[in-house]
Amino acid sequence: MPISKGPQAFPRAEYLRRLAAVKQEMEQRDTDTLFVTDSSNMTYLTGYAAISAYVPQGVVVSIYDEEPTIILRRMDTPAAIYQTFLERDKIIGYPEALVGSSDKDGYDVVIDFLNEIGCASRAIGLELNSLPAQSAEKLKTRLPNAKFVDFSRAVTWIRIVKSDLEVEVIREAAAIADAAILRAAEVIRPGLREADAIAEIAGTLARGVNGKIGTRIVNINLCSSPRTGTSHILWSEDIFREGSQINIELGGVRHTYCGAIMRTFSIGAPSDRLRRLHDAEAEGLEAVLNVVRPGATCSDVANAFYRSIEKRGFKKESRCGYPIGINWMEHTASLKNGDMTVLKPNMTFHLMLGNWIEEDFGYVLSETFSVTETGIDVLTRAPRKIFELS
Amino acid sequence: MPISKGPQAFPRAEYLRRLAAVKQEMEQRDTDTLFVTDSSNMTYLTGYAAISAYVPQGVVVSIYDEEPTIILRRMDTPAAIYQTFLERDKIIGYPEALVGSSDKDGYDVVIDFLNEIGCASRAIGLELNSLPAQSAEKLKTRLPNAKFVDFSRAVTWIRIVKSDLEVEVIREAAAIADAAILRAAEVIRPGLREADAIAEIAGTLARGVNGKIGTRIVNINLCSSPRTGTSHILWSEDIFREGSQINIELGGVRHTYCGAIMRTFSIGAPSDRLRRLHDAEAEGLEAVLNVVRPGATCSDVANAFYRSIEKRGFKKESRCGYPIGINWMEHTASLKNGDMTVLKPNMTFHLMLGNWIEEDFGYVLSETFSVTETGIDVLTRAPRKIFELS
Repeated sequence: MPISKGPQAFPRAEYLRRLAAVKQEMEQRDTDTLFVTDSSNMTYLTGYAAISAYVPQGVVVSIYDEEPTIILRRMDTPAAIYQTFLERDKIIGYPEALVGSSDKDGYDVVIDFLNEIGCASRAIGLELNSLPAQSAEKLKTRLPNAKFVDFSRAVTWIRIVKSDLEVEVIREAAAIADAAILRAAEVIRPGLREADAIAEIAGTLARGVNGKIGTRIVNINLCSSPRTGTSHILWSEDIFREGSQINIELGGVRHTYCGAIMRTFSIGAPSDRLRRLHDAEAEGLEAVLNVVRPGATCSDVANAFYRSIEKRGFKKESRCGYPIGINWMEHTASLKNGDMTVLKPNMTFHLMLGNWIEEDFGYVLSETFSVTETGIDVLTRAPRKIFELS
Repeated sequence: MPISKGPQAFPRAEYLRRLAAVKQEMEQRDTDTLFVTDSSNMTYLTGYAAISAYVPQGVVVSIYDEEPTIILRRMDTPAAIYQTFLERDKIIGYPEALVGSSDKDGYDVVIDFLNEIGCASRAIGLELNSLPAQSAEKLKTRLPNAKFVDFSRAVTWIRIVKSDLEVEVIREAAAIADAAILRAAEVIRPGLREADAIAEIAGTLARGVNGKIGTRIVNINLCSSPRTGTSHILWSEDIFREGSQINIELGGVRHTYCGAIMRTFSIGAPSDRLRRLHDAEAEGLEAVLNVVRPGATCSDVANAFYRSIEKRGFKKESRCGYPIGINWMEHTASLKNGDMTVLKPNMTFHLMLGNWIEEDFGYVLSETFSVTETGIDVLTRAPRKIFELS
């Protein structure tokens, strides 16, 4: 029996709008065919969200076709029919014999398809920042007359300005992130294993809030003393102790869109040093809120923060954040000194104020925000404090 | 204050053994320097397990040095000190200014390092199956006198035979996977949201069993009617219903090593069709158990299964599995017809018997096993049945 389309998070018109922006970019670069392999960009253009990027797959966008074509392992085509807005004839499955084969793979089917649609001797865009070198080489060898154009991050840059619908989905994701932070504050206590806190946090990330479930559990970074100087480790085999500081970074997810947050916890009273750093960072965050508006640059935002905490005697070496959306980070702009990207309404950022000052001491604070017509809308809402636990 | 080394899952001797095997391969290919970028291979050679592969990073192995050198974003060096077996002088952090910069990035620091150690005009191995085309191009441009050698999957192939310690870690991971399957059977009932079951499953994956926590929560694939023909979607917004069939694929994790399992559930009595398919598949699995031993090939294993279910009138298009270890799948051998890889003791596989027969009907069953000196050790132990729930 055929599988039907599942419930769609976005209407067809939303995907056509996204595709129109991509096709405009293609036309500007005299490229009538684009092969999209970044899995977040694939999701953006089709709605496909199955976990299958460990085998070759991709989306072919042609300026001559309204819908793109998705090419994946045959096993994954029912998921594509169910999840995407695409008609069936735009979903191509390649045979299982190509999986785990050393000579041919799914990219050979993509190449055959590019030949069939008659673009083998024309310009073809590739995402060379993520396409593996070996696969790019295969495309170049098997399509010797094509002119390859580097479309690295081109679709990702289009993603940076969200639709109202996307912002609403990120708002729902952010509410789940808030709930997970509050759950962490409820359960963390001396003697509990870090893993037990993670179990409760992950449970909240799946159950969601306000009747809206979390649609994915993304990595939860939980670093407690003496590991607070690390930024990207998951939890450890340790237990929480009296006097422990705990840094948590997590994200809620709705329909692949992520809302992220970081908060710092202390079992017992925070040290003076931690308190002073928190006060400086919270003040710096307020400074950012006063700067974010259409027309300001990413550099302006970062420098507002840096200048504010420097007044209190602190420095932060790392950038202050990045655009957030499908699968968390978008690799485009950065909230850093010198990044002249101009803020526009519906850009959405993870304002990442984590500050790892010494090898054994760091502090975290972050919010997910979107730029509005006149300023900023902070989507994460958990109290902006050091959570003191007992 | 400096951060100390954390508890190590493997002794230094284990890493030196792994490195010796890699260096032997390098010598056979006249390559004295290897740049490892596959994040699972980086973990294998150093113990580094932080979630930071979204920025450039890698491990440089030189046949002249006992320890490799890990190069990563400065923010991630405390995690590397804490997690890896490496001395401090083998951990190089590159400045934050290179993150989110369009001209220079972390690979430039790697190139500088390769120049410094004097291998810029010699053979350098690259993992071209995972290194992005753009980054490979940068290496080739900035190291014009180097001879690049394709080491795609070379380290991954070395990973295929585990040490006894690795098998024991996978056994612990498999026990967590079993517990999560049993937890799913306890909680799934009509009216429950799929997300609520995921919350409980994820909780078990974090809490672990026998005092050994789960060290990561990997994606949980849960497909229920009418989506059982899909293979890699996560859960949906749906609730479970009387008569629902549910397919679950999940993995427990210990120290990045994964033990995976698939089981099928039915709310109420399974359909005749599902029952017949299960009986055929369970019988096919028994046939596999009789074939796995050192000296048999991957092809022998797959064909034992295919022949067995064909006697019952069923077919399976996809392969019957793949090696499993760090971060789940190893992209090397396949349990498929024609794969002449010879089984050796301590190879560990996910025997993946999922069978997606129609767009709206599939069934799953799998085990994680290791090859022993004389046969097979099935590491997952959950009952090999359709779980009938009410």
